[in-house]
Amino acid sequence: MSSVPPAIAEAYDPDRFRTEGHRLIDAIADALGRWHEREGVVLPWRAPADARATWARKPFGSADLVDELRRIMAGSTALAHPHCMAHQVPPPLPGAALAELVSAILNNGMAVYEMGPTAVPIEFAVIDWMCEKLGLPETAGGVLTSGGSLGNLTALLAMRQARAGFDVWRDGAHAGKPLAVITSDEAHYSIARTLGVMGWGQGGAVAAAVDAHHRMTPEGVERALREARDRGVHVIGIVAAAGSTATGAFDPLHELADVAARERLWLHVDAAHGGGVALSLGHRHKLAGIERADSIVWDAHKLMMMPALVTAVLYKQHRDSYAAFAQQASYLFHAGSGADDPDDRWFDLGTRTLECTKRMMAIEVWSALRVHGEAWFGDVVERLIVLAATLAAKLRDTPGFEVAIDPELNIVCYRHVPDGITGDALDAHNRALRQRVVEDGRFYVVGTQLPTGYHLRSTLMNPLIEDHDLDELIEHLRTLCPS
Amino acid sequence: MSSVPPAIAEAYDPDRFRTEGHRLIDAIADALGRWHEREGVVLPWRAPADARATWARKPFGSADLVDELRRIMAGSTALAHPHCMAHQVPPPLPGAALAELVSAILNNGMAVYEMGPTAVPIEFAVIDWMCEKLGLPETAGGVLTSGGSLGNLTALLAMRQARAGFDVWRDGAHAGKPLAVITSDEAHYSIARTLGVMGWGQGGAVAAAVDAHHRMTPEGVERALREARDRGVHVIGIVAAAGSTATGAFDPLHELADVAARERLWLHVDAAHGGGVALSLGHRHKLAGIERADSIVWDAHKLMMMPALVTAVLYKQHRDSYAAFAQQASYLFHAGSGADDPDDRWFDLGTRTLECTKRMMAIEVWSALRVHGEAWFGDVVERLIVLAATLAAKLRDTPGFEVAIDPELNIVCYRHVPDGITGDALDAHNRALRQRVVEDGRFYVVGTQLPTGYHLRSTLMNPLIEDHDLDELIEHLRTLCPS
Repeated sequence: MSSVPPAIAEAYDPDRFRTEGHRLIDAIADALGRWHEREGVVLPWRAPADARATWARKPFGSADLVDELRRIMAGSTALAHPHCMAHQVPPPLPGAALAELVSAILNNGMAVYEMGPTAVPIEFAVIDWMCEKLGLPETAGGVLTSGGSLGNLTALLAMRQARAGFDVWRDGAHAGKPLAVITSDEAHYSIARTLGVMGWGQGGAVAAAVDAHHRMTPEGVERALREARDRGVHVIGIVAAAGSTATGAFDPLHELADVAARERLWLHVDAAHGGGVALSLGHRHKLAGIERADSIVWDAHKLMMMPALVTAVLYKQHRDSYAAFAQQASYLFHAGSGADDPDDRWFDLGTRTLECTKRMMAIEVWSALRVHGEAWFGDVVERLIVLAATLAAKLRDTPGFEVAIDPELNIVCYRHVPDGITGDALDAHNRALRQRVVEDGRFYVVGTQLPTGYHLRSTLMNPLIEDHDLDELIEHLRTLCPS
Repeated sequence: MSSVPPAIAEAYDPDRFRTEGHRLIDAIADALGRWHEREGVVLPWRAPADARATWARKPFGSADLVDELRRIMAGSTALAHPHCMAHQVPPPLPGAALAELVSAILNNGMAVYEMGPTAVPIEFAVIDWMCEKLGLPETAGGVLTSGGSLGNLTALLAMRQARAGFDVWRDGAHAGKPLAVITSDEAHYSIARTLGVMGWGQGGAVAAAVDAHHRMTPEGVERALREARDRGVHVIGIVAAAGSTATGAFDPLHELADVAARERLWLHVDAAHGGGVALSLGHRHKLAGIERADSIVWDAHKLMMMPALVTAVLYKQHRDSYAAFAQQASYLFHAGSGADDPDDRWFDLGTRTLECTKRMMAIEVWSALRVHGEAWFGDVVERLIVLAATLAAKLRDTPGFEVAIDPELNIVCYRHVPDGITGDALDAHNRALRQRVVEDGRFYVVGTQLPTGYHLRSTLMNPLIEDHDLDELIEHLRTLCPS
């Protein structure tokens, strides 16, 4: 006779899961079908305060799960709709979302090997594969973590411990001079955020000027380095981008690696977005030199079409990964077991990530590779880059539109330029246009502030986008233009 | 005529998703049924190097998705098996895992409101509900983030900016004196990790002694504070635990809040594990005083039975949440839009979390509340606490076993004490016993180093555990004892 209260047993009942699960699969498949057919809006816009008030009023304890989830789907931004051309977030590969369901049900925590006896070896398999794809040496390795921002923080913590010249982990930042890295004006805001988290202040990021293609130059880095050293700042690294956030630009990694070697600096490459081009035979040359970086961040939830968040932090020397977090917890990491070399417990991943409990994020990448193979991913990347080039070309051919820069990747920055409008008025015009697009909802684009002014920005993340969708976007923008 | 390559169209085909989805739902429901029936092992142990080698050899591009995921399930730790009594990670509510599938498919990024026009208001609804459950004032608010470690980091960053007495974000740590917090010897390792990340060094954590019940005392805190100030350290906060990691102890929050008020310190409460007792009428008094904390971390992926990771960072004054990360990114946060008060854009969550792209983690909590109601969660918490008390009582009644402390929560620390064995030999005996349990795999328990020595540790996370499972665990341990 079970002592489990019936309401608890019922909530955990496998047959309830089976029934609700089958209903939900159909609801999702139907929604995917509608989005792929371009039905409905991309962005069901509502004023934030209205939306908040509406959801806050729902009573607890009476809803049907699948109805509730269907309502959430209907109100969400439809990344799978080919008229979504906005952020650097993909419509996930549906099979990878199914892998996420397995991850959620299993909930293997992964801080120590025994908590995830398949997830941990699969994480190693994925990391080793990523290292190989980037051409890193045999000594390389790394970990998966929850997102690019956390990935950049993790890598820069390893850099700090390896290159500060004192034990920051043990003695604190005050034990040495203020530290800094050289970065570009256009680095992702998570880099400045990371430096702020570590207590380096705004002086921790020494900005090197970029060229007309939004790329760092070795001369710019050398100049920034000299000036920082003259001010008494201890520069320990260079942070480069492979696929910058604003425009998708690739910094010249070989040249920066030369500077890093000459000046004994750590080279970190934020390839959160661009890492995926390693899978494309036609574009992987853009990453040339990345194999010389000390640390790299690569988001599988960007060009590898995984649902967020799956970020790899890769190190040329895998032992550097132990430097990021230099501590132990007795209930996890076998204190007193006499292990002195951290490599003796290489299989306990929690020593190398900020997360203690971590999602089984490797299995979605792994199962997608097992099912579709590597070449499939390269084909997707190539298609997305072609779509971006096509959109840029169409915009250039459309009177009244201007493209900021030839896209190197799948990001297009552009604006509408009415006759005689310049400067702040031009920025205001494009902001107003974007606001109309958002509130209309049939298409979705974002915006970014470039040195030359505010631009609309479309990241082409959906390989199901067709040529005619690009034409329709441009026509839509023309129609919505404030007169 | 579509220009999408057939292999890409096929991978995204809604009907393929439908077919694979239905197969997977059945595979998961079958597995849940077997685990609930106590079939098979909890922990399919393999030596880490063997497991790594096996998984590394699998070829890409030929697998069936559902077969692959079934293989992963078979090799993983079965948290849903009632003989799993180990870490503080629950067998997730199956319906919450289905909500995760929706989150994965939608992939709404949530840094700005328009990226998640349902996920963002639902996050506010969940946060507001959690604040209410803890008795926080109307001014309260917060955010969800990826895990308790990141949650503690986020809260302590807010504390640093609010209480350091200088602008650490802008000017860096070197602009002021070294900072520190008072914490307990038994704080979760993520607290020391957070301080290390911020560059405070080991001196950043000033340990206050705990009493025999593993709780901080106001006298201990005052003493640690005096000693730290005598050493010239600038103490800015107290970090208390509500449900400590090792033993589940609750620090006396009212008394610590009195000290914090008197000494003008920030009070942070790590209620990652214990926050859930707020939902139990019978146990919520253990959290008395938590409403006076400046910041709180509460993991819904512990006592609320959600799949990892869903962590709430709550602030008594919601405006403190803007202090954690004091910066802007033009392509996201409308630079130049003239917004000076961060509250003008309260709906853009990315200004308050380390994550830029964030999972739609609120919807699993929300939909579970909508379906099951609040009382259901309270019943689960009460059952888990009863199970822990029952296990402790049974162990006390079993010759040869010793319980470290009466459990206040759902964590039991215990050891096997053979006649005449003490000290290091006793620790070694219990380590050996645990290793046998792990390699046997039919049950799963963990271990922790307490001041009195190494103990086995069982967190009762599965409400489907019955009385006889506890008896069988004890019998299993007796059988496996090294002679």
